Amino acid sequence: MKARIVTLPGDGVGPEVTAAAVAVLKTVAARYEHVFAFEEQLIGGIAIDATGEPLPAASLAACRSADAVLLGAVGGPKWSDPNAPVRPEQGLLALRAALGVYANLRPLQVHPSLANLSPLKNDRLKHVDVLFVRELTGGAYFGAKTRSADAATDECRYTVAEIERVVRRAFELARDRRRHVTSVDKANVLETSRLWRSTVQRIAAEYPDVKLEHQLVDSMAMLLLTQPNRYDVVVTENLFGDILTDEAAALAGSLGLLPSASLGDGKAGLYEPIHGSAPDIAGQGVANPVGAILSAALLLRHSLGLEAEAVAIESAVEQVLRHGPHSRDIGGSAGTGEVRDAVLAAIEDHA
Amino acid sequence: MKARIVTLPGDGVGPEVTAAAVAVLKTVAARYEHVFAFEEQLIGGIAIDATGEPLPAASLAACRSADAVLLGAVGGPKWSDPNAPVRPEQGLLALRAALGVYANLRPLQVHPSLANLSPLKNDRLKHVDVLFVRELTGGAYFGAKTRSADAATDECRYTVAEIERVVRRAFELARDRRRHVTSVDKANVLETSRLWRSTVQRIAAEYPDVKLEHQLVDSMAMLLLTQPNRYDVVVTENLFGDILTDEAAALAGSLGLLPSASLGDGKAGLYEPIHGSAPDIAGQGVANPVGAILSAALLLRHSLGLEAEAVAIESAVEQVLRHGPHSRDIGGSAGTGEVRDAVLAAIEDHA
Ligand SMILES: CC(C)[C@H](C(=O)O)[C@@H](O)C(=O)O
Ligand SMILES: CC(C)[C@H](C(=O)O)[C@@H](O)C(=O)O
Repeated sequence: MKARIVTLPGDGVGPEVTAAAVAVLKTVAARYEHVFAFEEQLIGGIAIDATGEPLPAASLAACRSADAVLLGAVGGPKWSDPNAPVRPEQGLLALRAALGVYANLRPLQVHPSLANLSPLKNDRLKHVDVLFVRELTGGAYFGAKTRSADAATDECRYTVAEIERVVRRAFELARDRRRHVTSVDKANVLETSRLWRSTVQRIAAEYPDVKLEHQLVDSMAMLLLTQPNRYDVVVTENLFGDILTDEAAALAGSLGLLPSASLGDGKAGLYEPIHGSAPDIAGQGVANPVGAILSAALLLRHSLGLEAEAVAIESAVEQVLRHGPHSRDIGGSAGTGEVRDAVLAAIEDHA
Repeated sequence: MKARIVTLPGDGVGPEVTAAAVAVLKTVAARYEHVFAFEEQLIGGIAIDATGEPLPAASLAACRSADAVLLGAVGGPKWSDPNAPVRPEQGLLALRAALGVYANLRPLQVHPSLANLSPLKNDRLKHVDVLFVRELTGGAYFGAKTRSADAATDECRYTVAEIERVVRRAFELARDRRRHVTSVDKANVLETSRLWRSTVQRIAAEYPDVKLEHQLVDSMAMLLLTQPNRYDVVVTENLFGDILTDEAAALAGSLGLLPSASLGDGKAGLYEPIHGSAPDIAGQGVANPVGAILSAALLLRHSLGLEAEAVAIESAVEQVLRHGPHSRDIGGSAGTGEVRDAVLAAIEDHA
């Protein structure tokens, strides 16, 4: 097949891990006889420096017409003043909104050979396989804000339609998994959560084959530690999803391992590792490319429908995590390129 | 000294654990020659059943004129419909607001002999001693809410004055500890967080002897697991505090162990264990009273200035945690009364 993929390497380690993921996609293309055209664009701090804007119009236009977008990371100490008028994160938020990618999928599995790196006791990590579905284009991230000398406000707003579409996506995904959806809210305090809960209840009636459970966000923050293997698909609003998925990511032993996919309705999907720009190690060639590489696998699966190719990448990564080489964050000493090459070799073996 | 203490046992296991804490306070009063007058009032589901209101006027009036308030827990399956017009939690939120207890202190320590119960690996738990200071009377909990057929909103609002007073409290508390304050916000996304951060920065200048660190709430959710012993005082807004303190509580091995103190400016403080009403075990006499008993110790310290008496309770609890008897939640088989009696005996020994 032919596909146009826009890459947005961004800041910090973003360019290094994105390059590794692109190398993997090129190998897959060659092996499986696809034609992937790559186009690189600016986002984040590097875009601010070059154009004054965190998401230049040319970047957005390219993403809009692409089949999929692969992003590295945005932000860094140079642009870290939260009160600056223009900030790297604005580029990412504007992109999510413009692409309409309302469902952010963050799968969490704990690789058995890396369980020693997890802060959690190993018996708690057995059979952990959670798919977070975070609402990504609503809530307090995009609500009205005010600021005066004395006070500030953020409005969290959800419409029924916004809740319905992401919750339906979660139920659909659960049907291909263990048929268990946990919806997380703060319905004992927030009006948006009460609307969320009653909407979830209504949608759940369309999926009688899927078990539904509600949890309050504070309880869920605890349950993710005490009973992480109890969960299958976890669906929640934007800010709760931000917090819970980072908490959950700690269980995997390294943030560097985890991918994400952000999907809308038929438009280009957005794929990015969940780690940030990691300025402390940027430019050293030591960043773990696995999160970016697994994001490329999700891109093949969700935007291009290439399931066998996605599985080829995932199997290759699995093999490298089992036998090494391992990057520093997971206790090894391999550089980004060494890990990339090991994944490439494993794909060649697999194919 | 003479003091008037209002008790609000509330729902579920609330009455059982509150009774144990009152027994401890009575023993302390006898031993140290204080006169504590106790007055029991209604709150929560039991108050709704009796009066139609989750915080009857008589309860509030009694709390307002008391020296301190000791609360059990509110809520339960009978009143759990989040869309019901009157709900138990409303009583608790109204009480916090009416008493003006804007600073919620939640200390976290992990007792060495209970480390095996924690989901975290034991090496991560060494030297964990965190004091969370959660803003308790502002933010999305108390902002304007709207609800229509199609949408809902919650406004998170903070004034500079609201931020200043709780942050000052955190810095003051840090001076009696390891002089390290971590302020948690989401300043890369929220306007209230940007105001929070710049206010914290300004207040910090008054405390040059205290080290200040900022963390984003998503990173903090991760850092609490990977480096929990790095933190001393953690200050944050209401909703983030709700989530992070429950997450942190999981580290201790059981929610049943942890106390809290909610303080304002010179008004009655509010003391409660951080666990909920635990309807599954209510009325069976098996609830762990330690969280409530340690809340009574905080009451003596913060509302009555009785430091030696507070320490007597804490030492007694420490001894019981070390040698037993242990309640079910921490792997033993002792009932509430047995644990209470062991604490009482240890106080008699200590005094
Ligand atoms: C960079 C930041 C704006 C972003 C978010 O809060 O969504 C990040 O934390 C994430 O989870 O992708
Ligand atoms: C019962 C609920 C309203 C409350 C809160 O969210 O503050 C509880 O979770 C807590 O942390 O004390």
